[in-house]
Amino acid sequence: MRTQESYFKALDDGRNVFYKGQRVQNIVTHEVLSVPVLHAAQLYELKEKEQLFRYHDPSLGEISGFFRIPNDSEALWYRSKIIQESTRRAGGVFNIIQAIGSDAIFASLLVGKQLAMGGKTEFLKRVTDYLSKVAREDLALAVAQTDVKGDRSKRPHEQPDPDLYVRVVEERKDGIVVRGAKAHTTQAAVADEIIFIPSRAMTEADSDYSLAFALPANAKGLKMIVRPMIEIEGFPSRDDAPNASNHAELETLTILDDVFVPWERVFLYRDPKMAGQLANLFALYHRFTALSYRTAMADMYVGLARLAAKYNGIDDVPHIRDDIVDVIMYREVMYMAARTAAVECLKVADMALPNPLYTNVGKLYSNAHFHDVVRDVIDVAGGLVSTLPSTLDYYNQETHEYLEKYLRGSGQFSGEDRFKLMRLVREMVGGPVTGYMLGGMIHAEGSMAASKIAMYREYDFKRSEELVSKVAGVKYPSHIDRTS
Amino acid sequence: MRTQESYFKALDDGRNVFYKGQRVQNIVTHEVLSVPVLHAAQLYELKEKEQLFRYHDPSLGEISGFFRIPNDSEALWYRSKIIQESTRRAGGVFNIIQAIGSDAIFASLLVGKQLAMGGKTEFLKRVTDYLSKVAREDLALAVAQTDVKGDRSKRPHEQPDPDLYVRVVEERKDGIVVRGAKAHTTQAAVADEIIFIPSRAMTEADSDYSLAFALPANAKGLKMIVRPMIEIEGFPSRDDAPNASNHAELETLTILDDVFVPWERVFLYRDPKMAGQLANLFALYHRFTALSYRTAMADMYVGLARLAAKYNGIDDVPHIRDDIVDVIMYREVMYMAARTAAVECLKVADMALPNPLYTNVGKLYSNAHFHDVVRDVIDVAGGLVSTLPSTLDYYNQETHEYLEKYLRGSGQFSGEDRFKLMRLVREMVGGPVTGYMLGGMIHAEGSMAASKIAMYREYDFKRSEELVSKVAGVKYPSHIDRTS
Amino acid sequence: MRTQESYFKALDDGRNVFYKGQRVQNIVTHEVLSVPVLHAAQLYELKEKEQLFRYHDPSLGEISGFFRIPNDSEALWYRSKIIQESTRRAGGVFNIIQAIGSDAIFASLLVGKQLAMGGKTEFLKRVTDYLSKVAREDLALAVAQTDVKGDRSKRPHEQPDPDLYVRVVEERKDGIVVRGAKAHTTQAAVADEIIFIPSRAMTEADSDYSLAFALPANAKGLKMIVRPMIEIEGFPSRDDAPNASNHAELETLTILDDVFVPWERVFLYRDPKMAGQLANLFALYHRFTALSYRTAMADMYVGLARLAAKYNGIDDVPHIRDDIVDVIMYREVMYMAARTAAVECLKVADMALPNPLYTNVGKLYSNAHFHDVVRDVIDVAGGLVSTLPSTLDYYNQETHEYLEKYLRGSGQFSGEDRFKLMRLVREMVGGPVTGYMLGGMIHAEGSMAASKIAMYREYDFKRSEELVSKVAGVKYPSHIDRTS
Amino acid sequence: MRTQESYFKALDDGRNVFYKGQRVQNIVTHEVLSVPVLHAAQLYELKEKEQLFRYHDPSLGEISGFFRIPNDSEALWYRSKIIQESTRRAGGVFNIIQAIGSDAIFASLLVGKQLAMGGKTEFLKRVTDYLSKVAREDLALAVAQTDVKGDRSKRPHEQPDPDLYVRVVEERKDGIVVRGAKAHTTQAAVADEIIFIPSRAMTEADSDYSLAFALPANAKGLKMIVRPMIEIEGFPSRDDAPNASNHAELETLTILDDVFVPWERVFLYRDPKMAGQLANLFALYHRFTALSYRTAMADMYVGLARLAAKYNGIDDVPHIRDDIVDVIMYREVMYMAARTAAVECLKVADMALPNPLYTNVGKLYSNAHFHDVVRDVIDVAGGLVSTLPSTLDYYNQETHEYLEKYLRGSGQFSGEDRFKLMRLVREMVGGPVTGYMLGGMIHAEGSMAASKIAMYREYDFKRSEELVSKVAGVKYPSHIDRTS
Repeated sequence: MRTQESYFKALDDGRNVFYKGQRVQNIVTHEVLSVPVLHAAQLYELKEKEQLFRYHDPSLGEISGFFRIPNDSEALWYRSKIIQESTRRAGGVFNIIQAIGSDAIFASLLVGKQLAMGGKTEFLKRVTDYLSKVAREDLALAVAQTDVKGDRSKRPHEQPDPDLYVRVVEERKDGIVVRGAKAHTTQAAVADEIIFIPSRAMTEADSDYSLAFALPANAKGLKMIVRPMIEIEGFPSRDDAPNASNHAELETLTILDDVFVPWERVFLYRDPKMAGQLANLFALYHRFTALSYRTAMADMYVGLARLAAKYNGIDDVPHIRDDIVDVIMYREVMYMAARTAAVECLKVADMALPNPLYTNVGKLYSNAHFHDVVRDVIDVAGGLVSTLPSTLDYYNQETHEYLEKYLRGSGQFSGEDRFKLMRLVREMVGGPVTGYMLGGMIHAEGSMAASKIAMYREYDFKRSEELVSKVAGVKYPSHIDRTS
Repeated sequence: MRTQESYFKALDDGRNVFYKGQRVQNIVTHEVLSVPVLHAAQLYELKEKEQLFRYHDPSLGEISGFFRIPNDSEALWYRSKIIQESTRRAGGVFNIIQAIGSDAIFASLLVGKQLAMGGKTEFLKRVTDYLSKVAREDLALAVAQTDVKGDRSKRPHEQPDPDLYVRVVEERKDGIVVRGAKAHTTQAAVADEIIFIPSRAMTEADSDYSLAFALPANAKGLKMIVRPMIEIEGFPSRDDAPNASNHAELETLTILDDVFVPWERVFLYRDPKMAGQLANLFALYHRFTALSYRTAMADMYVGLARLAAKYNGIDDVPHIRDDIVDVIMYREVMYMAARTAAVECLKVADMALPNPLYTNVGKLYSNAHFHDVVRDVIDVAGGLVSTLPSTLDYYNQETHEYLEKYLRGSGQFSGEDRFKLMRLVREMVGGPVTGYMLGGMIHAEGSMAASKIAMYREYDFKRSEELVSKVAGVKYPSHIDRTS
Repeated sequence: MRTQESYFKALDDGRNVFYKGQRVQNIVTHEVLSVPVLHAAQLYELKEKEQLFRYHDPSLGEISGFFRIPNDSEALWYRSKIIQESTRRAGGVFNIIQAIGSDAIFASLLVGKQLAMGGKTEFLKRVTDYLSKVAREDLALAVAQTDVKGDRSKRPHEQPDPDLYVRVVEERKDGIVVRGAKAHTTQAAVADEIIFIPSRAMTEADSDYSLAFALPANAKGLKMIVRPMIEIEGFPSRDDAPNASNHAELETLTILDDVFVPWERVFLYRDPKMAGQLANLFALYHRFTALSYRTAMADMYVGLARLAAKYNGIDDVPHIRDDIVDVIMYREVMYMAARTAAVECLKVADMALPNPLYTNVGKLYSNAHFHDVVRDVIDVAGGLVSTLPSTLDYYNQETHEYLEKYLRGSGQFSGEDRFKLMRLVREMVGGPVTGYMLGGMIHAEGSMAASKIAMYREYDFKRSEELVSKVAGVKYPSHIDRTS
Repeated sequence: MRTQESYFKALDDGRNVFYKGQRVQNIVTHEVLSVPVLHAAQLYELKEKEQLFRYHDPSLGEISGFFRIPNDSEALWYRSKIIQESTRRAGGVFNIIQAIGSDAIFASLLVGKQLAMGGKTEFLKRVTDYLSKVAREDLALAVAQTDVKGDRSKRPHEQPDPDLYVRVVEERKDGIVVRGAKAHTTQAAVADEIIFIPSRAMTEADSDYSLAFALPANAKGLKMIVRPMIEIEGFPSRDDAPNASNHAELETLTILDDVFVPWERVFLYRDPKMAGQLANLFALYHRFTALSYRTAMADMYVGLARLAAKYNGIDDVPHIRDDIVDVIMYREVMYMAARTAAVECLKVADMALPNPLYTNVGKLYSNAHFHDVVRDVIDVAGGLVSTLPSTLDYYNQETHEYLEKYLRGSGQFSGEDRFKLMRLVREMVGGPVTGYMLGGMIHAEGSMAASKIAMYREYDFKRSEELVSKVAGVKYPSHIDRTS
């Protein structure tokens, strides 16, 4: 089984990573980017130490639980639980490194199975082989889906610059050459492999854009520009960021400057019909993943609100309790959605899909209300969220005594503990991670609009329309339903 | 097995029912109150015709599914399903007549078991016998819980008038005499039996009020004053109320004017400690019931919104879709809560309790957002909700042609069908049932405040507090948790 | 000056009014419809008794304040105040009878002035003469705007039936013949005159529909079908409807079955360009009117919430205070919007327009949050909102004593007073008026979508776009603004 | 008139300022803290260049408009306008430096006048003299109000440590000695003077805490610890913070380590009765100030949302328009509240108070909905808010071409302009300023709970309670109103 050491070693492979205007030599030893490396590596430690994270596959042997193919409710719920638990172990920060990749592989498997039923068997074989490889080698994976998109009102082939969605620019005997860029690829720079999949439904004219494939992170022509990780290095001292200084994920703009992909790594090719389906299936698995990690992430906010209330001596003030209950609602609606999506999964071929309706119901709630959670915690914690001095001041001998004395809250806690608690609260709801999280919670794994569209599309309106038609005494001709 | 006929016959038993200022002679033949009678009676028809509603009990034989004691997740979910389905069969109107009574009996059983463990075995025996009786005789039941309460800031024994909570006024050899009044007792006047349980936690000083017992609906001294059922008779024509003219439940102010209760019908007696527990257990079962019927009720609103949109020709207008998605959210959060509460039930003795956290999460959402659903449907349906002419005008030959011509909407529906659909929409979101429903959805089975208290009480804060304490680097001494 | 008597007499003019499937002989003596008559007539009483409601016009002498042409902020605010005050005098029920008519006349005056500037002077003269007439004779007016519209996705001339928007079907020497129907015409059946204006912007092809004109309520071919007024007659006793039994407005479906209109009453004719403008100007004046009456209407809800809290003895419970504060917010945002719309009015020609931005901001808030107000009051008042017995039971000697005893709340109020208060609460948030009001508050004077469109159209984005462009350091070329 | 130069010079006065664990030598030349200095100094430039910011006082001559005593609606609105305009000139960042000080002085003046009416004239004289001084010398002022408070459930004198609220520890012939600490004192370290006022109502036992006074910023024993200003220095490059690198305000924990205050600078002394009133009056003036600056701040968010929509090519997508309309609502409700609070000001003595009801209505809306504005802008802008590369990468020649090519949006804007716009959007809703702003908007100038309390206290319930009582037919005895 893969160790942290072998993972670290694999990352020193000449990959093209840029950060703050400079090429990164070795990401493992980089003073900032090593944080996402270590965060990802925690998964190998968890797997080594805890049975929960391992799964015995009949043919592959003992593999990471993330690569277990979900075939029923129990397997889906197991998947949710390891995502929740690994998130909780990391201070509520999602560890995407095997979750998103397996989401993409499972979606590709289903598409491959459909293609195979239609007679095209090579794609299923490639995906199956690829899954065996990543599971056996226990690889770290990223998924690049969101194209940069240019003018949002135009389709891929209509864009003035044809490269604004990733496309094939050359077909060779042994593979294809691809060009374009993907935005916000989480943990790409610390992955072994990056899987590229379409970001939307395509039309026939978008054939060049209807692709899926995988690349090693050091593929020639592949370049990754990392966003500024101010949640780690923005504060005067890393101690001011107790969570992000240990757990954070990077994001890259991922550029394909005419990169070659051998055929065995091409999972979808010039197939506009299946492109949208692959995008949707991935979105479905990945939103289920989202519900799972967000549930554990929300544990942090429940705890922040409750402990801030206690430290301030206001945990029985009614409007403070309302705030805390609101955070609980946030966590538990997501949890219920994940639970119900697993219990009421759909069986397709020999795989289990999270129930699309409940997955999207939970996801919509999750996106629509995270900002309320932030407001709740701020309301409980008070103005220090914006004005707490830095750790450097706290331990500066000229000012330490004052801060210890005056930052005391409710009597049962020391001034130092309250400072430490408030420092974490500030980090989470008043610091650089706050804006980053808000963007993530609203957009990652699909926007509110995307979930609404999915809900509307998936909904069984017939049940309620027939009921109403019957009570109203009007006809409910089936042809009407088909018109919309 | 009991038939509708035998049920009707049993109701003609001299019970004291008052409606619109007059004593009701026979409720079965009453021009208005026969509607709730027939609504309740539908349960006997469903049970006769459909296997779903029958349960084979090892000792009692074939009984109504409502009286099946829930002992695991599956049994709870079965219970939820028959509540959903019977509600759907009744135009989205809850059929409470065996659901609430079994909720109360299950709660009493659990209290009885606890008392038996402490050595007081008679209560468990009485409840067990009572359940056998009602299951065998397939009785119709009401539950009277909410005391009239007087000044809400005072406990029962502090009220200026000692009768503002139901209390024992005399203890006899063969039983007790009780006095007081209960508000909003649903379907009391059409029940065979009424079960009285406490509405709150009690203190030692409230011992006289710490009671539970059952009475036949025609007990001497028992009087029931029915609310005005304007949803049935308020419109110019019953055709203007297509739903309520077939399905509605009555509510009574239920008065105990020194009523005698034999000991075998007393399920809790001068037991302040268990009074609150019985109230809470009943609330828990009954809120699970609420989630179940409200899910099916919400089907009506989903259908109303979707069909109104289609009839108006606006079902692809984005803000109309937002309205519809919001109604879907409403239904599905309740559904997910019921589902998760069943899947993650608690096992106590040999019974299964719906998970209290998820039950209350769903209930809070349900209470807090029903008014949004009403707004959504109104927004979709348009001003006719307030201004639609009556059915008498629609079929008046002087005006019929105009109405047929001018009430047309989108081309694929006739003017008459649109009138009928809008008439039902008006009934549900612009008619007398609307105000009644709003009150019910906000208060029935416990207010928002009640669900918040339950959530706060039930919540496992330790998980998140420990997580935050660890990340913050502060101590999390267990004694702190106990202080709040 | 006109008296109530002369108004009543004028209503007995052979007008074609239908109610509950029958032609109404004399609306003044009709057992139900006399309520809207008396409600309208209150305006004549107020004007007679109170200076506030009278205005001395230099040329017309002493006229109703409603017909005072607004020419500055003060005049607009005066208008708002008399609308507020007349609403307050009527239990929070808007008295539309001179407000809406003057809104339409002011809008028509502005359009007339614009046409006159373009050389077409006859329309301005006709409107001016008409205003003089109605002001001198102190007439009661209704306005019919909303066409029945058929398929909402089609323009007037595209509808399968050409009559689904009101149109001219014949042009004669002395006038025109019109056909069609208007929905929800408030108080049409108790007005002296009805003014018809377009409901939307028109295209050239909709020329036949681009009309405005006035008709006496007894015009030949004009037929009015009144909605069922269940808020008056739905309860067992009118005493159960203490407010609506005195104050209510009727609504009609208003049918024009080839009605002749003499030229002097035609205010816009085959003028698609000005049709939309007239619709918008009317909407603007009328939404300002709406803010004004809704402010006073909201006084009722503030009072209901506060008194229900006191009668229940819970007025210092925090979540109850939150409810009350929410109702206050509702009232005061509308008030602030009206106030600011008057203070920052636009001057066009010699007239003052309420500021369109603030008018729509207030209107949007008003439509979007009325249902919250209903929820707030219900949350405060408790379940009796749905289950209170009728007045007939309250005063039935068999049950009176029980009700008096058990309906007591907080000690300082008698059982009878609490019954009366709760009866009014039930009427307003749990009775037939509730559904009607919800529809009205969400749709009357334009939907939420309509206010959003107006806000977006009116907004001065340049101020903020220039600011942002400057800070971002990007160009803000003026041509960009014109593209959207 | 004071120049920027003389202001800079005055700041080099040996004041005790700490930042990132070190004493600051000269704040004017400090690489980070010079930003708040220059921000404050902009006021002197505005005053020099624009008539708007100057006011001719009959006795003091030409002074800063901020020191104009408001005596009527017009003067209040003038005040609001200069606050709005100076905020707008600073990229939507409030310039507090004369606004808050004058708020405190006006409140102290009113308290002084009340004390003078009671015979204690010295306080009024001191405040009057102080105002003359600061107006003539055109000083920069901070106000320290919020005590550190310790256990929020205890009064000042009940705290285990008596210093957790600022108090007098010694009374001398020539003045007093004070001790304690104030949290979040905005711009204290760049002010000439700091005014200390009570943060709450006091009881007799809190007499030592019932103080108000002013100190020069370099007073002996006065120490200021500045929060980390990561919005300026957190990003890899200051270019990543186009707004905060020019405009930001600092906040200090302000410590009084036995500081001497001469009597002429003591404005309230051991006066528990007036302490609460001073706190409230200051809160009122300052919340009016808040509405004013927040209106202009909101201009930034309106512009960000609108331009982001245009740059993304989605400004006519309905849900995007909804987001923009929501931001407009936010700005305009605050604007209307400020406008109405000025128009309906209260006259006390010869001064004008902003209407307390409308001030708090606006403030509550402002606090409760800022997080929605953040969500709206994020929803419009997309995931780049979280993942945009840094400016260093944008202009790194190895990556520049890719970024220019792939960050293009809608065709009419260059890639560079879109990068710059998105960089500002990221700064405002996805950067370190976001968390800081959220805390500020929720807590600064008083929390939501504080505004609710003020609204409830100020509200004229009589109007609506009488109305309801009349319609309900119940007594409305005046004594009842007094009970609550």
